[in-house]
Amino acid sequence: MITLSDIRSAYGRIAPAIHRTPVFSSATLAARAGVSSVELKCESLQKTGSFKVRGALNALSQLDAAARARGVVTVSAGNHAAALAWASRAAGVACTVVMPATASPTKVAASAGYGATVIQHGTSMDAFARARELAERDGMTFVHPFDADAIIAGTGTVSLEIFEQTAAPDVVVIPIGGGGLIAGMAIGIKELSPSTKVIGVEPTGAAAMRASLDAGHAMRLASVQSLADGLAAPMAGERNYAAVARYVDDVVLVSDDEIAEAMSVLLSRCKLLAEGAGAAATAALLCGRVPVRATDRVVVMLSGGNVDVERLKAVL
Amino acid sequence: MITLSDIRSAYGRIAPAIHRTPVFSSATLAARAGVSSVELKCESLQKTGSFKVRGALNALSQLDAAARARGVVTVSAGNHAAALAWASRAAGVACTVVMPATASPTKVAASAGYGATVIQHGTSMDAFARARELAERDGMTFVHPFDADAIIAGTGTVSLEIFEQTAAPDVVVIPIGGGGLIAGMAIGIKELSPSTKVIGVEPTGAAAMRASLDAGHAMRLASVQSLADGLAAPMAGERNYAAVARYVDDVVLVSDDEIAEAMSVLLSRCKLLAEGAGAAATAALLCGRVPVRATDRVVVMLSGGNVDVERLKAVL
Repeated sequence: MITLSDIRSAYGRIAPAIHRTPVFSSATLAARAGVSSVELKCESLQKTGSFKVRGALNALSQLDAAARARGVVTVSAGNHAAALAWASRAAGVACTVVMPATASPTKVAASAGYGATVIQHGTSMDAFARARELAERDGMTFVHPFDADAIIAGTGTVSLEIFEQTAAPDVVVIPIGGGGLIAGMAIGIKELSPSTKVIGVEPTGAAAMRASLDAGHAMRLASVQSLADGLAAPMAGERNYAAVARYVDDVVLVSDDEIAEAMSVLLSRCKLLAEGAGAAATAALLCGRVPVRATDRVVVMLSGGNVDVERLKAVL
Repeated sequence: MITLSDIRSAYGRIAPAIHRTPVFSSATLAARAGVSSVELKCESLQKTGSFKVRGALNALSQLDAAARARGVVTVSAGNHAAALAWASRAAGVACTVVMPATASPTKVAASAGYGATVIQHGTSMDAFARARELAERDGMTFVHPFDADAIIAGTGTVSLEIFEQTAAPDVVVIPIGGGGLIAGMAIGIKELSPSTKVIGVEPTGAAAMRASLDAGHAMRLASVQSLADGLAAPMAGERNYAAVARYVDDVVLVSDDEIAEAMSVLLSRCKLLAEGAGAAATAALLCGRVPVRATDRVVVMLSGGNVDVERLKAVL
C-alpha cells in the first residue's frame, strides 16, 4: 500500500501542472448540517473539471520513453478519460479511451476535444475488457482509472492541499466510485491526522465498496445505475478496498434523489456546479448520513463538475 | 469624488466580515477571446452571492447610533437589497427594502430570509420614489444602491483584492447597472495602475451609462429591459457618471442572447453559476466588444450568481 511519502512525491511531480483548487466555507451548508463549519474542496474547478488529472498526470510521469512512444489506453465513464487525454496531450503521448455506450455526451466530447481516440463500447465491464484487449494487441500501457498505485498517490495529493488550506478537520466526506479518490485521500488524511474521521459515500445503485466491506473482500457488482455516472464503477478496486478497510471510518449511501437535491443546493446557494459524483458527499451530509457532532468542522469533497446540460435541467 | 485612500479605509472596515473572493484563470475563455490570459474575479462567491455586501457594510459602518436606531431603507432589484438586509442583521439595524414588482423571486426571498421588511412596488422608478417617501416618513436612512460615496468606496475594494491576487492586468472588464461597481473599481484600478484599461459593459436594453457618456451628463432612461435584472437600473448615478467619464476607457454593449450564452459557457466550462449581470462582462469579451491585444492579461468581473432556477433553465 502506498504511503504519505508516495503522495508527497506525486505532489512534487504534478503540482506545477494543476490548479491548487479553492476551499470554500458555506454557512448555509453548516446550518443545514448542524455542524460548526462546512468547507467544500472544489475539484470541480480543477483542470478538465475533476480531480482525475492528479492521478493521470502522476501515472504518465512514471512511464519510460519506450512506453510513452507506444501510447496509453484506459477505460472510463468520462472524467478519468478526459483527464488522461488532457495529460497525454500535454506530454505528447498518444491516448485511446474506451467509454461505455451510456457515457455522458459532454464527457465523450471532452475526451475527443483533448485529442484522444475515443471508442464507445457496451457496458462498463465490456469497456474494461475492450481496453485491456487493445492494450495487449497494440502494446499500449493500460492506465487503470482507479486501482493502481500511481493513481492512488495522485488522488491522495488532494489531502495535502486540504491540510495546507484549513485547520485539520474533524470529518472529511469523500465520494466513492472505484475508490481511487478515497483510497489516496484516506491514506494522506489518516497519516497526517489520525483523529480526523473519513467517511465514504456511494450511491445506492452502485455501492460496490459498501458491499465489499460487508463481504470482507473487494466485490464486483452485476449491474450499476446512478445519476452520478462518475460513481457508477462496477467494482471496488483491490488496492482501494484494502485502503478503505484500513483507513476509512464508514461508508454510507445516498439515493439519486438526494444527490439531485444536493446538486441543486450547491448551485443555488453556493453558486457551484457539481456533477452527481461531485454532489454525493454534500448529499450524505445534508441527509444526516454522516455521523457528526455540533462542534465538528467538516470538509466535503466536491470532486467534479462535468454534467450534461440536459441532465442538469432535469435535476433543476 | 472618492479616492484610493477612501477605498483603503473602507477595506479596513469591511474586510473582516467579507470573503476575499477567488480569482480563477480560464484557459478556455482565454483561447476563445484570443488573449494571453483571462481571470475571473468571482464575487458570485461573496456573502449573499454578489459584490453588493461591500458597499452595504461600508455604508452601515458610517451611521451614528441615532441613525442605526431609526433603521435603514433602500431600493433594489435584489442584490443590494439582500446585501443590506444581511449587513443590517449583522449590525442589529432594522432594514426595509423596496423592490420592483418584477424582482426575481429568488432575490425577494433572499432579502426576506435575511430579516428585512420587503415591499414590492411598481417599476424601478416607482420603487425608488416609495423608498424615498418611507425614509422621510419614518426617519430611516436611505442607503442608495449605487450613487453614494460610501457605496462606491465599498465596491472599490474589489480592485484592491485583484491587485493583491494577480499581477496588474492590461484590461479589466466590469458590468454597469447604476455604475457603483465600476465607479469604485475604476478609481481604485487607475490610481493603482494608470496603464490598465477599464472597460464597462451594459446590456443593450438598459444602457444608461452609454447614453450618459454620449450626452455628456448623467441620463435617466424612460424604460429598461434586460435578462440581467441586476443591470437594469433606470439611470446612471451622478457620482458614478463622473467617475466613469474620468476613469473608464470605454463602455460597450451586449445583447440578452449574448449574456445568456456567456452564462452557459461559465457554467459548462468554468463550473461557475453567474446571473445575467455576472455574465455580462464575459459576454462582452467573448463577443469581441472589448478592445484587446493577443498579449493582454484580462480580468473579468463575475459580479454575482443570484439567478432563479426557472430563468437558468430557460437560459440553458
